[in-house]
Amino acid sequence: MPPSPMPQPLPSLPPIIYQQVIRDSLREDLGRAGDLTTDAIVPEGLKVQADLRTRQEGRVAGLEASLLAFRLLDPGVEIEILRRDGDDAAAGDVLATVTGEGRAILSAERTALNLLGRLAGIATVTRELVRSIAQSRAQVVCTRKTTPLLRALEKHAVKAGGGANHRFGLDDAILIKDNHRAIAGGAAEAVRRAKAYAGHLVKIEVEVDDLRELQALLDLGIDAVLLDNMDAATLRQAVAMVDGRAITEASGGITPQTAPALAASGVDLLSVGWLTHSAPVLDIGLDMEPQRP
Amino acid sequence: MPPSPMPQPLPSLPPIIYQQVIRDSLREDLGRAGDLTTDAIVPEGLKVQADLRTRQEGRVAGLEASLLAFRLLDPGVEIEILRRDGDDAAAGDVLATVTGEGRAILSAERTALNLLGRLAGIATVTRELVRSIAQSRAQVVCTRKTTPLLRALEKHAVKAGGGANHRFGLDDAILIKDNHRAIAGGAAEAVRRAKAYAGHLVKIEVEVDDLRELQALLDLGIDAVLLDNMDAATLRQAVAMVDGRAITEASGGITPQTAPALAASGVDLLSVGWLTHSAPVLDIGLDMEPQRP
Amino acid sequence: MPPSPMPQPLPSLPPIIYQQVIRDSLREDLGRAGDLTTDAIVPEGLKVQADLRTRQEGRVAGLEASLLAFRLLDPGVEIEILRRDGDDAAAGDVLATVTGEGRAILSAERTALNLLGRLAGIATVTRELVRSIAQSRAQVVCTRKTTPLLRALEKHAVKAGGGANHRFGLDDAILIKDNHRAIAGGAAEAVRRAKAYAGHLVKIEVEVDDLRELQALLDLGIDAVLLDNMDAATLRQAVAMVDGRAITEASGGITPQTAPALAASGVDLLSVGWLTHSAPVLDIGLDMEPQRP
Amino acid sequence: MPPSPMPQPLPSLPPIIYQQVIRDSLREDLGRAGDLTTDAIVPEGLKVQADLRTRQEGRVAGLEASLLAFRLLDPGVEIEILRRDGDDAAAGDVLATVTGEGRAILSAERTALNLLGRLAGIATVTRELVRSIAQSRAQVVCTRKTTPLLRALEKHAVKAGGGANHRFGLDDAILIKDNHRAIAGGAAEAVRRAKAYAGHLVKIEVEVDDLRELQALLDLGIDAVLLDNMDAATLRQAVAMVDGRAITEASGGITPQTAPALAASGVDLLSVGWLTHSAPVLDIGLDMEPQRP
Amino acid sequence: MPPSPMPQPLPSLPPIIYQQVIRDSLREDLGRAGDLTTDAIVPEGLKVQADLRTRQEGRVAGLEASLLAFRLLDPGVEIEILRRDGDDAAAGDVLATVTGEGRAILSAERTALNLLGRLAGIATVTRELVRSIAQSRAQVVCTRKTTPLLRALEKHAVKAGGGANHRFGLDDAILIKDNHRAIAGGAAEAVRRAKAYAGHLVKIEVEVDDLRELQALLDLGIDAVLLDNMDAATLRQAVAMVDGRAITEASGGITPQTAPALAASGVDLLSVGWLTHSAPVLDIGLDMEPQRP
Amino acid sequence: MPPSPMPQPLPSLPPIIYQQVIRDSLREDLGRAGDLTTDAIVPEGLKVQADLRTRQEGRVAGLEASLLAFRLLDPGVEIEILRRDGDDAAAGDVLATVTGEGRAILSAERTALNLLGRLAGIATVTRELVRSIAQSRAQVVCTRKTTPLLRALEKHAVKAGGGANHRFGLDDAILIKDNHRAIAGGAAEAVRRAKAYAGHLVKIEVEVDDLRELQALLDLGIDAVLLDNMDAATLRQAVAMVDGRAITEASGGITPQTAPALAASGVDLLSVGWLTHSAPVLDIGLDMEPQRP
Repeated sequence: MPPSPMPQPLPSLPPIIYQQVIRDSLREDLGRAGDLTTDAIVPEGLKVQADLRTRQEGRVAGLEASLLAFRLLDPGVEIEILRRDGDDAAAGDVLATVTGEGRAILSAERTALNLLGRLAGIATVTRELVRSIAQSRAQVVCTRKTTPLLRALEKHAVKAGGGANHRFGLDDAILIKDNHRAIAGGAAEAVRRAKAYAGHLVKIEVEVDDLRELQALLDLGIDAVLLDNMDAATLRQAVAMVDGRAITEASGGITPQTAPALAASGVDLLSVGWLTHSAPVLDIGLDMEPQRP
Repeated sequence: MPPSPMPQPLPSLPPIIYQQVIRDSLREDLGRAGDLTTDAIVPEGLKVQADLRTRQEGRVAGLEASLLAFRLLDPGVEIEILRRDGDDAAAGDVLATVTGEGRAILSAERTALNLLGRLAGIATVTRELVRSIAQSRAQVVCTRKTTPLLRALEKHAVKAGGGANHRFGLDDAILIKDNHRAIAGGAAEAVRRAKAYAGHLVKIEVEVDDLRELQALLDLGIDAVLLDNMDAATLRQAVAMVDGRAITEASGGITPQTAPALAASGVDLLSVGWLTHSAPVLDIGLDMEPQRP
Repeated sequence: MPPSPMPQPLPSLPPIIYQQVIRDSLREDLGRAGDLTTDAIVPEGLKVQADLRTRQEGRVAGLEASLLAFRLLDPGVEIEILRRDGDDAAAGDVLATVTGEGRAILSAERTALNLLGRLAGIATVTRELVRSIAQSRAQVVCTRKTTPLLRALEKHAVKAGGGANHRFGLDDAILIKDNHRAIAGGAAEAVRRAKAYAGHLVKIEVEVDDLRELQALLDLGIDAVLLDNMDAATLRQAVAMVDGRAITEASGGITPQTAPALAASGVDLLSVGWLTHSAPVLDIGLDMEPQRP
Repeated sequence: MPPSPMPQPLPSLPPIIYQQVIRDSLREDLGRAGDLTTDAIVPEGLKVQADLRTRQEGRVAGLEASLLAFRLLDPGVEIEILRRDGDDAAAGDVLATVTGEGRAILSAERTALNLLGRLAGIATVTRELVRSIAQSRAQVVCTRKTTPLLRALEKHAVKAGGGANHRFGLDDAILIKDNHRAIAGGAAEAVRRAKAYAGHLVKIEVEVDDLRELQALLDLGIDAVLLDNMDAATLRQAVAMVDGRAITEASGGITPQTAPALAASGVDLLSVGWLTHSAPVLDIGLDMEPQRP
Repeated sequence: MPPSPMPQPLPSLPPIIYQQVIRDSLREDLGRAGDLTTDAIVPEGLKVQADLRTRQEGRVAGLEASLLAFRLLDPGVEIEILRRDGDDAAAGDVLATVTGEGRAILSAERTALNLLGRLAGIATVTRELVRSIAQSRAQVVCTRKTTPLLRALEKHAVKAGGGANHRFGLDDAILIKDNHRAIAGGAAEAVRRAKAYAGHLVKIEVEVDDLRELQALLDLGIDAVLLDNMDAATLRQAVAMVDGRAITEASGGITPQTAPALAASGVDLLSVGWLTHSAPVLDIGLDMEPQRP
Repeated sequence: MPPSPMPQPLPSLPPIIYQQVIRDSLREDLGRAGDLTTDAIVPEGLKVQADLRTRQEGRVAGLEASLLAFRLLDPGVEIEILRRDGDDAAAGDVLATVTGEGRAILSAERTALNLLGRLAGIATVTRELVRSIAQSRAQVVCTRKTTPLLRALEKHAVKAGGGANHRFGLDDAILIKDNHRAIAGGAAEAVRRAKAYAGHLVKIEVEVDDLRELQALLDLGIDAVLLDNMDAATLRQAVAMVDGRAITEASGGITPQTAPALAASGVDLLSVGWLTHSAPVLDIGLDMEPQRP
């Protein structure tokens, strides 16, 4: 049969991965007694239409996950999605329109926006960093420095921003750091232990702090090296030493200012923790108007 | 009997409130197969001692909650706590020392640091804002713009930073916003509905956008007014109009730069969403050394 | 725009608050093997219609929550709701009609009735107490003496009975009791500590046992006083002493017999634990008849 | 080897059966912010000793389960148990003494007492009913009309009161009721289906409304008959008709007043729903005094 | 009214009993990042049709439970069920056809097949054993030697294979084994204790190892005896000794080879652990073809 | 510092990975009422000592996980571990001795043995297969055809048997199968999509059915090829074609009989589903004797 089209660069996450987080977040906000203000003021059956609208320019991420908050409080809500994760939105753009029970929409608003703003914030700073190194062949990757319980969603947001994903956890790849090396008595022994232990689909990366350490690694047959806290010149030397025998990843204090020079060194990856641990939220609001019956 | 001493300004959170979050975060990082790198390299029974050490100056928050990650992987771990939530720490200070199974400590490291850095980051930016208005009588308060599932911990971090807490959820106070007023057909009717509905220990606050709206509220007997997006001069007028009949809270785009002037208006509270939704993490690391048996 | 109508005095609880309780209750009754009797006898595909019918006069509460039990076992069940929470029903009235899979309806019957009878029982005794003090301006309020895991539903049932809600938990208001006062070394110090700790939307209530204690409190600026175990005459004096400076709540052994005199003292609230901890169930049954295909 | 002694008539429930209920009840009461009052007033490290003491005479049940609430908030709490489930206690008796962190004990108090009062209340009314029929050979049994999620604990409380347990759920025995008979087209066919379906360790009981129905059942080889809503005279006839071929159970509106006459009919069991669905709580309180350091 | 038809010998399990297992199994396979392969290759919106098809002859069990995996990933999936639990299927038969999102179907495939193959495997070996003793009046029953967390589904599979169910757990019948007898100081004392403790709908079975032990039991009025590890001749003697006073169950190392002779002894039941703990899976696959839009 | 010793080939799983499975399995067996037999017969406080003892020769796996069942019912139980996962045990060997509350040990017995027998069964058949190919350089690997919710434990058991682990789920490596290739329109396009999507630590494996397909893959730079259902001769050709450019894995109907010839082909891996989906349990029992006080 003829081939199907290539998938979008950013496939949707299956809701089964995040629905418990949305459900628990709603419960966290509703507490035992529910939304006192809305219950006091808004009559049941009053329908409203509301727009999720950006207050500033940015990159969309987490839209479907966030909209689930409305669905969980009003299963009959109608949702029109106008932007997709990975799209850019200007300030004032409507990302989605939600039409349903006014009570449900008001009560779910903060839960939806808290998640959406955070994920779009991550996508937006990732996009900025990706753009800053567009002249190079390097990719931006995130780390395991994510928000507790949001790793899958935040990794998805990084992809929405044009970045790529590093390990999702401690169990899907081996990354040998200083402490592991020290305990093993050296990188060579650490790599030997890792190879003896790892399954055939597990890659091995090793962190190095200087070129001497790097040199010692190159014949061990590892998949990637993490070049920690090196300046652009040293990185360039490192890339030359590696010479394609491993993927090269630069790490440590990378900012949009320093990224272009670092990327120009020829490294494959720039890994950046603050994409997920310190990105400011993107300001997104909900504009609502009651509908006449 | 003689009175007990006054409690610390910042009592510990009972672990039952956060332990599920720590447990689930560990599972999120360990996945199905556990820590491949550590399991490959570190022998069982190797004890290590590790210091949780700041890499930059800041305010401590979430220390006990974060340390639970180590305890959950090694119930026999010994922990010495050197700083408490609410303390300041210089760059390089040791917050706590952890001694136990090397495997457990390495595997729990990232889970502990992800939480601790985030909470200390919140405490630190809160402290900065609090300091910026030290000349005034105003307090800094946070909002419901918190990270999904971390509200209790993040509100605690705001207190560690010297701030105070606003509502914890939709169910512990009434806060009438624009949409509620519009649906009710005006603030007076909205307040009437709220009073008819609220229990006797529920306070009522109303958001207003200008002084005209404020004027209309003052005789309704509400507990607090949220003065949204007003400049310092307008705030000063608002405070004068209220004249002690309600708590006054300023909100909207408050930064360390604008805060002193706003606080000088005489408002009781400055509420700030970015304390919890956009604070950068405080950089804290784990320094480890194996112990000889 | 024109104002919306005032909400019903008793808004529905959002199902997300109670659905886990219903789901777990069904599992508690079905166990591992399911409903042996029904599975043995009732063929799949046999539709039945069943009426939820009162066996005695009373006040309805918890109807929607209880009906969820049928929906969870037969997602296609059709439900006609004939009474709402807060309505009175005569003996023999049909509250709702349920039409669907016979197996599902028989298997869910007891789970639904156990919850409904309990909540309607609470609403009914609350209504009786409310009626007994109709000549006064006092309100009936419940306490935290609720059934484990049913607090939100039972507080809702009290409202269905015409009562009001006290605190929902330890975290939505401050209530200083004897032990707290003793530990602080007196009420004044306890209140001082509470004010220093409480957020701006947290009210403070203090329990007192006699008029001398009450006197000492009046200048401390608290929101409410809990007048414990006072007779009507003492209550009257207390109300006069308070003179509108705080909400007054009477508590302790209040029954429909003693309530009118106590309420006539002028107190604002009568709080009553037995509404939730000792109300007998309202007798409600399920009358079923198979339908011809 | 020599035989062990006979177990107590009332073995302890394994905590794994109820610990989730206790944990969730504590979370229900502590909410997101914890015990505001206690945290404001009671300093960490202040030890207190507290007595769980009856305020009225009754039968103890659920003591160990309730005490778990204290342990969960203070793992180091010391507990001295002075009465066991199934013991009688006079008004003012101390059931247990709890010594530990004042904060933990104050915060867990209501959770512990809500459960303990309920279970002791059930045990106490059961004891009364059991005593009322002490002259007969009949036993008191409870039903499935229990509080949602508390079935195991409430069935245990019935045993503490001297009663026995009926089915724990829909899956541990077959009980054919009116609706089942009607759907099957008669009791004989219903029993036939039940026997074809039931495993070899599943007993079968059938509910009958009159002696004619009973007569038709007697040759079907069932284990028990539920004689619904019969007066003492009819019951006596029923017992004679059954003549030992099945266990006989009387049901329907049984009270301490009517029980003696019904029991005198010779039935084996009186089953009573209100033991679990409508028992008033037993009044039990916590008396505390701070300890000097 | 006219009687309803007799239910199928194998009623469906209510999904509430197993849905958490299916949901958790999907999460176990999808992990944090989801199905990398499918997300990389299959575009959203591509519909496929897939057949669940046997690769070998066998007995169907667990079909509806397994199909839930597809529904959970694609709520709009269309499912045509062609065989029911308890049916036989030849190699190559299609059990069900699933039409929906290609991504969902590919991602759910292994979760569905892992469960279905296991349950059909159990049904198939049960069927073989049942057929091997078709000449006798004995039934095949399973034990509590089931897979952790799958007991309800595996007991159902045994019924699909033509077998019957023994106890579902420790709490729905009493089975006195060697250790219990030893602790009690003999079978008679053990039975006495069991009778004193058991509710009126709880049956009592006792395990015996030889005819002498059996003899001692026969006057104790127990419901069933478990004749452990006896050969056919001894079993025949045992059945004669019991002479209908209890249900007789043979146990211990029963295979399709030994079963006919053992069954011919006249015992009521052959109980067999390996039906659930060691049955090989039935080979079932998913054949898929993309649909043109 | 001097290097630590190499870890055991089989590190312990962290209990946080499996403890919920053990806890839920205990609840599954105890049900609502607990262990009726034990509670009726065994007095509280009676201590017993019990040996976990093999009834047949095999390889140990899952011992610590299984022993957790005893600890959860008796936190004070003393456990002496005599064999470790990965050890061989002769028939009659004691794997561990458990000393504690008789009730707890009897009630946990089946839960512990069900898990232990299954995991040791997997380890034992894995060991047999590993031994059968000891002359070759090939490794035995398991698949995702594991028991629902036991994947981590069963993968661990495979390692205890001397095998290695394939993917743990859909998210830790890419494995392109027939359906993926067909949807992409060919292997080359599927691989192109996979490379565009995969993170830098994700390996890619492709399944092929014949040598022609294999040839087309070799220049695409993939990490591994899955050679499905090839005979030994074809495998040998495949290995020669691949010539070290990818890891080679043979799959499909591999048995201890066919494995030696297949392994002799020079493939790196033999992957075998039945290790986890169809291994018979290893027979292990619990031998107990009461202790005199």
